Amino acid sequence: MPELRKDPIIGRWVIIATERTKRPTDFKTDAPAPSGSFCPFCQGNEDKTPPEILAYRTAGTLPNKPGWRLRVVPNKFPALQIEGSLDKRGVGVYDRMNGIGAHEVIIETPEHHLTITDLATEQITDILWAYRDRLTDLKRDIRFNYGMVFKNVGKVAGASLEHTHSQIIVLPTAPRTVVDEMRGGKQFYDYRGRCIFCDIIQQELESGDRMVLDGESFLAYEPYAARFPFETWILPKRHMSRFEAIGKPEAEELAYCLKATLQKIEKALNMPAYNYIVHTTPFDLGDVEHYHWHIEIIPRLTKVAGFEWGTGFYINPVPPESAAEYLRSVQVG
Amino acid sequence: MPELRKDPIIGRWVIIATERTKRPTDFKTDAPAPSGSFCPFCQGNEDKTPPEILAYRTAGTLPNKPGWRLRVVPNKFPALQIEGSLDKRGVGVYDRMNGIGAHEVIIETPEHHLTITDLATEQITDILWAYRDRLTDLKRDIRFNYGMVFKNVGKVAGASLEHTHSQIIVLPTAPRTVVDEMRGGKQFYDYRGRCIFCDIIQQELESGDRMVLDGESFLAYEPYAARFPFETWILPKRHMSRFEAIGKPEAEELAYCLKATLQKIEKALNMPAYNYIVHTTPFDLGDVEHYHWHIEIIPRLTKVAGFEWGTGFYINPVPPESAAEYLRSVQVG
Repeated sequence: MPELRKDPIIGRWVIIATERTKRPTDFKTDAPAPSGSFCPFCQGNEDKTPPEILAYRTAGTLPNKPGWRLRVVPNKFPALQIEGSLDKRGVGVYDRMNGIGAHEVIIETPEHHLTITDLATEQITDILWAYRDRLTDLKRDIRFNYGMVFKNVGKVAGASLEHTHSQIIVLPTAPRTVVDEMRGGKQFYDYRGRCIFCDIIQQELESGDRMVLDGESFLAYEPYAARFPFETWILPKRHMSRFEAIGKPEAEELAYCLKATLQKIEKALNMPAYNYIVHTTPFDLGDVEHYHWHIEIIPRLTKVAGFEWGTGFYINPVPPESAAEYLRSVQVG
Repeated sequence: MPELRKDPIIGRWVIIATERTKRPTDFKTDAPAPSGSFCPFCQGNEDKTPPEILAYRTAGTLPNKPGWRLRVVPNKFPALQIEGSLDKRGVGVYDRMNGIGAHEVIIETPEHHLTITDLATEQITDILWAYRDRLTDLKRDIRFNYGMVFKNVGKVAGASLEHTHSQIIVLPTAPRTVVDEMRGGKQFYDYRGRCIFCDIIQQELESGDRMVLDGESFLAYEPYAARFPFETWILPKRHMSRFEAIGKPEAEELAYCLKATLQKIEKALNMPAYNYIVHTTPFDLGDVEHYHWHIEIIPRLTKVAGFEWGTGFYINPVPPESAAEYLRSVQVG
């Protein structure tokens, strides 16, 4: 059973995978690259993953058989365990609980050689809809309080399998970054009576300096204090605290916006490794006035040195305004 | 002039290096490795660095000439600019100030082929003493409020030059991680009337499970909620909030403890890349009861995937107790 342990000083929870203890020698070199010859996510290999939790498939086809266009399966090597109780306890000055949670994989297409930007907008809508379906289902489990949806593209960004996929990790406690964002949003709301994200959206629309894409319901822009070159955020223009409250027409528009933004980044930077992460409200809060869900896209261009790593203090060598200007000029679609 | 910009949601300051704007094409690949043929940090090349700020050298030798055993020089490519005023301003919903600060390099030995663990304990004492000397000097400048001392070893850890060196970045504002630690320490102090770090030290000494080295005045241990495999912290046993208040005998003992700990890590993990960072109290606070300076050593073993990157939520595949047991068993010296 993995353990969730809380840093006693700053309150950050860490998953300590006690059961998967590796010997120190296992860390002496990087893990070998995957062979690439066999892929458990390809059509026809459905029996090589745990049984599917959700699939969008052709009517009349059977679960765990070909005929799907998107499949959600449990991660075969989950960071957390789905069965059990939290068993929250103190250990002297420390706090811990059992590492209970869900870890699922969204296989985004049966076809191995495609990337997310190769997919039709309808298929990307499916992916976003699967995020929504899984979050809606998982939040019913009272042991859980946060659903973290993310995607790693490229080995540098942490992708261990090439076949395009996203992941959901559902946790008993919200991650630190979201807790910090909620707190900051709450402080601003208590003081100004408005959502800080809504204020940012208004300012970015008015100035246009950091705008990448200005759509009907979504915008993509470079944050004013971007940590990384070409860090890009996508936000819904209307106030919306929970990702899973998205409707079908919005999901369709978001799919278009996400695809175009990723295409611009890929074209500008020659197919970089990247991560994107959906930031949304913890399950127990419902709809709130002070938080606004969004997607953060982070291309992996610069090595993070000791400075950034240990301090949470970042040096960004590319002004967001320059990155935005460049991304606006890139023609895609 | 670089700019310091504040994230409006969580309050994190980022250095935006507006003057060193690179074209997007510069980021398409990793920077080339340094040639290794010429080293500006080697003895005899003193004129290839900016003039020295501090040096420990043989009596009678001249500044910026051979004869030194340790040299501190301004970084030739500083992240911040030393001259100018902060010019703090709002930009709509955002906050910014000029990127004023110091960025110095501590060249730890004239000899190119040595690593820090090859150096005699006396020489490591010099290094620690140079940290102290520079912090003590720089904190007199009222524009500055934090001195961040760190060391990157190995290319993966962000070291751009091979010749062993540390860096100091002095900032107008404390980095987020330290702000978070100060806040957590203050909350605990307000509630319990004790320093959280002192409580941790007591518990770690009693249990011994995560202990790596138990010295006279310092201990090295694996934190209970370690983010990374073999993450190791070194703390003074007596309560001490500011690194630069260290005395000479303590510096000598810390040198021994730091060297032995790094040697253990290097031997256990076959010379991994690593970072260490000194965490200390912001200049404006003086001595406080609720914070305790320490050094965090982070071997760079696992790739940080999207999950950790975007969320501040970490998965550590090695229990700190296993890492500590292994490091205790490694014989060094």
